[in-house]
This record gives sequence, structure tokens and C-alpha cells, in this order.
Amino acid sequence: MEDKTQGHQPKNIVESTKSWARQAWAHLESVRQASPLIQCITNFVSMDLVANVLLSAGASPAMISCVEEIPEFTPKTHALYINVGTLTADRLPGMMMAAQVANDCNKPWVLDPVAAGASGFRLRACLDLLKLRPTVVRGNGSEIMALFKGSVDENSKGADSTHESTDAVAAAKSLAQTSGSIVAVSGAVDIVTDGQRVVGAKNGVAMLQKITATGCSVTALIAAFVAIDPSRPFEATATALSIFGLAGEIGMSKANGPASLRMYLIDALHKLDRMTVLQRSNISNI
Amino acid sequence: MEDKTQGHQPKNIVESTKSWARQAWAHLESVRQASPLIQCITNFVSMDLVANVLLSAGASPAMISCVEEIPEFTPKTHALYINVGTLTADRLPGMMMAAQVANDCNKPWVLDPVAAGASGFRLRACLDLLKLRPTVVRGNGSEIMALFKGSVDENSKGADSTHESTDAVAAAKSLAQTSGSIVAVSGAVDIVTDGQRVVGAKNGVAMLQKITATGCSVTALIAAFVAIDPSRPFEATATALSIFGLAGEIGMSKANGPASLRMYLIDALHKLDRMTVLQRSNISNI
Amino acid sequence: MEDKTQGHQPKNIVESTKSWARQAWAHLESVRQASPLIQCITNFVSMDLVANVLLSAGASPAMISCVEEIPEFTPKTHALYINVGTLTADRLPGMMMAAQVANDCNKPWVLDPVAAGASGFRLRACLDLLKLRPTVVRGNGSEIMALFKGSVDENSKGADSTHESTDAVAAAKSLAQTSGSIVAVSGAVDIVTDGQRVVGAKNGVAMLQKITATGCSVTALIAAFVAIDPSRPFEATATALSIFGLAGEIGMSKANGPASLRMYLIDALHKLDRMTVLQRSNISNI
Repeated sequence: MEDKTQGHQPKNIVESTKSWARQAWAHLESVRQASPLIQCITNFVSMDLVANVLLSAGASPAMISCVEEIPEFTPKTHALYINVGTLTADRLPGMMMAAQVANDCNKPWVLDPVAAGASGFRLRACLDLLKLRPTVVRGNGSEIMALFKGSVDENSKGADSTHESTDAVAAAKSLAQTSGSIVAVSGAVDIVTDGQRVVGAKNGVAMLQKITATGCSVTALIAAFVAIDPSRPFEATATALSIFGLAGEIGMSKANGPASLRMYLIDALHKLDRMTVLQRSNISNI
Repeated sequence: MEDKTQGHQPKNIVESTKSWARQAWAHLESVRQASPLIQCITNFVSMDLVANVLLSAGASPAMISCVEEIPEFTPKTHALYINVGTLTADRLPGMMMAAQVANDCNKPWVLDPVAAGASGFRLRACLDLLKLRPTVVRGNGSEIMALFKGSVDENSKGADSTHESTDAVAAAKSLAQTSGSIVAVSGAVDIVTDGQRVVGAKNGVAMLQKITATGCSVTALIAAFVAIDPSRPFEATATALSIFGLAGEIGMSKANGPASLRMYLIDALHKLDRMTVLQRSNISNI
Repeated sequence: MEDKTQGHQPKNIVESTKSWARQAWAHLESVRQASPLIQCITNFVSMDLVANVLLSAGASPAMISCVEEIPEFTPKTHALYINVGTLTADRLPGMMMAAQVANDCNKPWVLDPVAAGASGFRLRACLDLLKLRPTVVRGNGSEIMALFKGSVDENSKGADSTHESTDAVAAAKSLAQTSGSIVAVSGAVDIVTDGQRVVGAKNGVAMLQKITATGCSVTALIAAFVAIDPSRPFEATATALSIFGLAGEIGMSKANGPASLRMYLIDALHKLDRMTVLQRSNISNI
């Protein structure tokens, strides 16, 4: 099914979008074939969904997080995913150590700064992790704004955003420049920037925000995509966001609410085929 | 669809039930509009379902639980929910501190004393939390009996009840009087009392007991309802129980077992409309 | 529906398979009637699925794991389930204590050595637990090989196996002999051995590996089956594996991917009837 709106766009934008779609498919296919091992140090709310999203995409999740195991286990993985939701003082050392081991072994790692602005403790933890230079940082508008400003958000709604992603583009660009990380901001349009380039991944549906841990899960998927294309994290981040959003769109066509959307999304991610990705993956320059 | 059995009830009971139903709808609508921020310090089994139930009802859950964040974060929330399932010694101080901060800020908070009678350690933790005077306590028959008696249950089945809710009415009334909390007892009929008044919320289906964390989730929903009507916790507790039970009834009409019921329940809660609530919410004096 | 392939097998094998199927039904029926209380000290990823699988099978899960409660609570349970996924140093003492209390009270207990070969710390924890002689140990091929060899797996994929179950038969037999435990190895065919006898449970579908915590959940189900037939753990382990796999087969006939399979599996387990179990439960000597 041709998207008719594209007929009115300049030809080079259409070509670029098609090229991004081909890349999205290549990345997904590569995750399915290579089944990269993704170490996940993630919050307790998200563990089930994160693991199931990774499995349905073809990756292999491992929820190993303690300091006794990291020096030995992290080097065996293909990428590391750190998520600070449900942060406690006793879990932070494992996060810091794993990021450091990943750096030492030249493994890509991805940070999800959940509710970064909710408290000074949490913000400092996120900023300390950011200093270890994650390959990618993905948050919602409020989280990226908090990291950019380095200050606590007085209107914090925890993991929920009070900013739109597009409001945070300037902050994201600046944060990418100072941190050296790829920065992604989720929202109605998902934004990805390396500090210079900015692309928008336009797949997805609003109801994803009514399912807990969808943000955590797409960050985990970014880790899987970066794992199989570690030299191009900007591209891998954009395609992971698009693929997840597309699975959400397909799920939404069958869903009657947030819980059935969650189920259909995972099923769709598992089944996603070449033709659908080429036709519907929607990434373009901003 | 008129419930024909109501035709045989005295007119004032019918009127009272209708008035409760209008209140249930008003509360649900208010949660959807205000999207209150609910801090949840809950057990690890329930986190996913609790968050998804709150999101589908329109509230905003935040699973922030550590002592480093509570003094700063709890004051930003609209209500606090504490659940002692998967209790450990290192999580208890956060629970106590959060309850205290909530009290200091005049925020309502709700206690779920999961498996209160399972051990002396757990019972003492629950009784200590009870002394901090939660706005509402919700448990099953065995849990409320254990709090009332202040003694360990030799026949404890953990989170599962070995008592019916109606057996616990006298205990619940007495506990409400001594604690100053609204006390709710889940069962075939859900009971709510402030020590004087007793109402029964008669929505719900038996299969909810075959899904883990449905009790935890309805307590979280009580917190959201109390958040938007903090001066009337007795009413908010009854309507939350009825709304959750009604979503379960609607879910049950499509379900083929506990897992599909869980999905349809959440979808139904998200979609619940005025007419359905007015016609089917079933709360009445006991 | 007669399985026509069985017509070509020697009569005594057909009879033996039928006898196993009758036993599988008897065990399931007994779990539903007795509703045994199963203490689960399991990893955070699996808690939701483990609890829901136990509930749908008719058992009563309790996720109580702290050292303050174990001496008082474990004696009230009918079986204990220990799973080392998401292991941390602070959770290990509770596991060791619970196993010891279970032994002291003559309660059966079951060990799931998740990712046993992922690190030295994890391997030592598993071997220490093994010394406390669990009634049953269930793992995938890689996990059982790691326990048998007593060495870390350089190619560990965390919770995912890189060995087939049938490759691990010799290791499983030997491990059963030295440990005194029943040893089960999950895979395309699930293997159970007491060190002498070996049976294969042939129910199940490949897509179960694309759902997180299905391995954890079937081990929890083994605990429930052993709880109601503690003197015959070899038989109870084989029937639990077959029943879970059969629920997976029934779920698969409706599923469109891993997430819908997860839902239909639980629904199927809850509904499983005598005729289906007698006709399709497939256990035989190897």
C-alpha cells in the first residue's frame, strides 16, 4: 500500500526515506540472525516487557546486574543497557561498573535516564553515568531537558513527560555535542541527533504511553540494534525507534486498549516482514 | 440494560445505588482529567500490573521508593501507595519514611498489608505502618483479621485469603475505629467501612483471584481515586473497588481464562464509559 | 483424536505412554484440589509469569524471600522453589536458609540454576545450593552442563541455552547420581532422570523460548506437582513438564506470536481437561 502523501514530497526526501527503510530492515534482519546478547540492568517494572521485546526481535536478553558478576559477564555480551528506573543506592555501583567494563571492552552501551529530573539523587546518578559516555541516551522530553539543564524538574511526573519531544530538539543537540553520545527523544515524533544531524522517526501510536515500560523497551531495542552495527549508532538508534513504532502501529490496528496493544505489538515485532518495513518505516531528516 | 432484580428493592436503595454509580463515574472521569501522580512502593510481583492499571485508568504511576529520593519526590505526588508484598528489611525504611512525608505534606496514602499474618516480622511492619494512620487500608479477609487480632495466622496461605470478606466485617469496623483509617476488605463482595458506615461494592468476578496482583492493583486504583477526592476517602474507596470490579465483569464476558481476563480487564478500564458505569456500578449499604 | 503415529509403536510403549498420561492428569487434578502453597524465591523478571502459571494450575504462590520470614513461613508451605536468575549477594543467604529450612521440615524443594555458567559467583552459588540436595533441579542444556562440569561457560548466553537437551543426557544422569536430585533438562524434548531411569516429555512448542520466564515457570509448576506427590518426584517432574508443554501446544494453535502464546498458554493451563491430557500428554522412556 503506497502512502499517497509521499507523492507530494520532493523526490530526494522520498529517496532518503526509502533508504532509511532499507536500513531499518537490514538492522532487524541482522538482529534476528546474530541474536546479540544484551545485558540489561533495568528497573523492576520493565523487566518482563524489556525481555519479551528483545526476545521477539530476535535478541537474547540477560538480566545480570551484580558487581560480583559484571567483570566476568559484561565482556561476553554484545551490548549493555542501563536504565535507572526504580533506582536505589545499592544498585548504582553495578550500573557504574558495568558501564566502565563495557567501555574497557569497547562494547556499546545505552542509557535510559528514567525520571532524571525527579530528585537530586537520581539526577546526579544520571549525570555520573553520562560522564562515562554512553553510546546512546534515550529519554522523553522532560528527561532530556533535565540532563541538559542539569537541574531537578519541579513539575516532575516521574517517568511521564511534561514536554513534547520537538521542544527538546535544541537541548538534545547540545547534549549530544557535550556528551559525545547519540541522543534520542521519544514523543509524537521520535528525534535522534548526533549533535549535527537530526532525524525524526515518525512511526508509533499515542496509546503506547498508556503501557508501562514501552520507553524502557524501545531503549533496550536500541541496544540490540547498536550491538549489530556498533560503528553507526546514529542510524541504529533511528531504525530501532522506527521498527518499534511500526510494530505499535500494526498492533494498534487490532488492539482495543493498552493491554491488547501490548500483546499485539510484541507479536507484530516478532512477525514484521521486509515488505511492511520497506513500505511503512518512516524516518526522515528534520 | 436494566438490572431487573433492582425492581424488587425498596425505592431508596435503588436511589442510593444510582447515586453511588454517579459518584463512581465522577471519580473515574476526574482521574482521567487530572491524571494524578501516584507514588507506588509496591512488591516486585505486582509492579507491571499496578502500573498498567493506573495508566489505563488515566493516572500517572511513579515507582520511586528509595530513602534518597522520598523527601524530595513524595511532596510532588498526589497520593502514595504502599504495599508490603516481597517485603525485605532494606525496603521497610523507605516505606516508613514515605508514609511520614505524605502525612507531613497532607497527602493521602493507602496501605496494602499483603500476607500480613504470614510472619511476625511482616505483621509488625504492617502494624508499624498502621500507626502512621494510612488514609485507607485494603486487604483480603485473612489480612484484615491478622491486623485486627495483631497476631500471626497459623494457616496463612501467603497472599491468598482463607477467610471470606463478609466474615471480616466486624473486624474491619473495629480496625477502622481504632486506626482512624478507612478499611476495605476484598472478597465476593468488597466491603468498605469508616467504622460507622458499611457499604458493599458488588462488582467483580471470581476469576480475578486467579490473576496475581489484582488485589495490589485495585489498592493502587483506590490511591488514584482518593488522590482526586481526598476529603472523601470512604466514597473514593468504594467507587474504585466498584470500577475495578466492573472492568473485571466486562473483561470476563470476553475472557477464556485468567490471562485473557487480565488483558480484557485493562482494556475495559481504559474504555469504560458513562452509561456502563451508571447502569452497572453496584454499591449499596450493608 | 487418535495420534496415528502411535499405531506403529510396540504395544508396551503405547501402554506406558497412556499410563504416564493418566498420571499427568491425576497430578494436575490433585494440584487443583489441594491448591498447595508454593514459596517462590525467584528472579524479578519471572515473578509475574511464575505466579500466574501457578495460579492458573490451581496452586497458591507466595513470593516471600527474606531471612526474617523464612524460619516462620517456610514450614507452612508445601514446597519451595528457588531460582537464581537476577542473583545478588544479598539475596543468596535467603535462598540458602530457605533450602535448609525446607530440608529440616522435610518439604520438597526445586532448584532452577538460571545461567549457571555465566560467572564464577553464580556457579558457586548454584553448586552450594546443589549441596543442600534439592528434590529436583531443572535447567536447559547449558545450565545442566555447567553444573555437571563445575566450570564457567565461556560461550554463555545468559539464560539462553547453546546446547540441546539431548546432548546433556549423560551429564544429567551423572549429575543426578552424584547430587541425589532428580535432574530435568528442557529442550526440544524435555529429559528427566533419577540417575537410572530416563524419560522424555515431548510436549511443547519452539516458540516458548521466545517468551521470557517460561523455563522459570515450568520449574515452579514442577514444585507444585512435587508438592502433591512428594514421594515420587521423578514422576511429578515428568508430568509437570508434559502438562506445561501441552498447554503451550494448545496455546500455539491460537497464537500469532510470543505474546499471544503467553496468554493462550495460561488460559489453556487453567482449562485443561481430562480427555485432552489423556490423549495428548506425551511422556515415554528414552
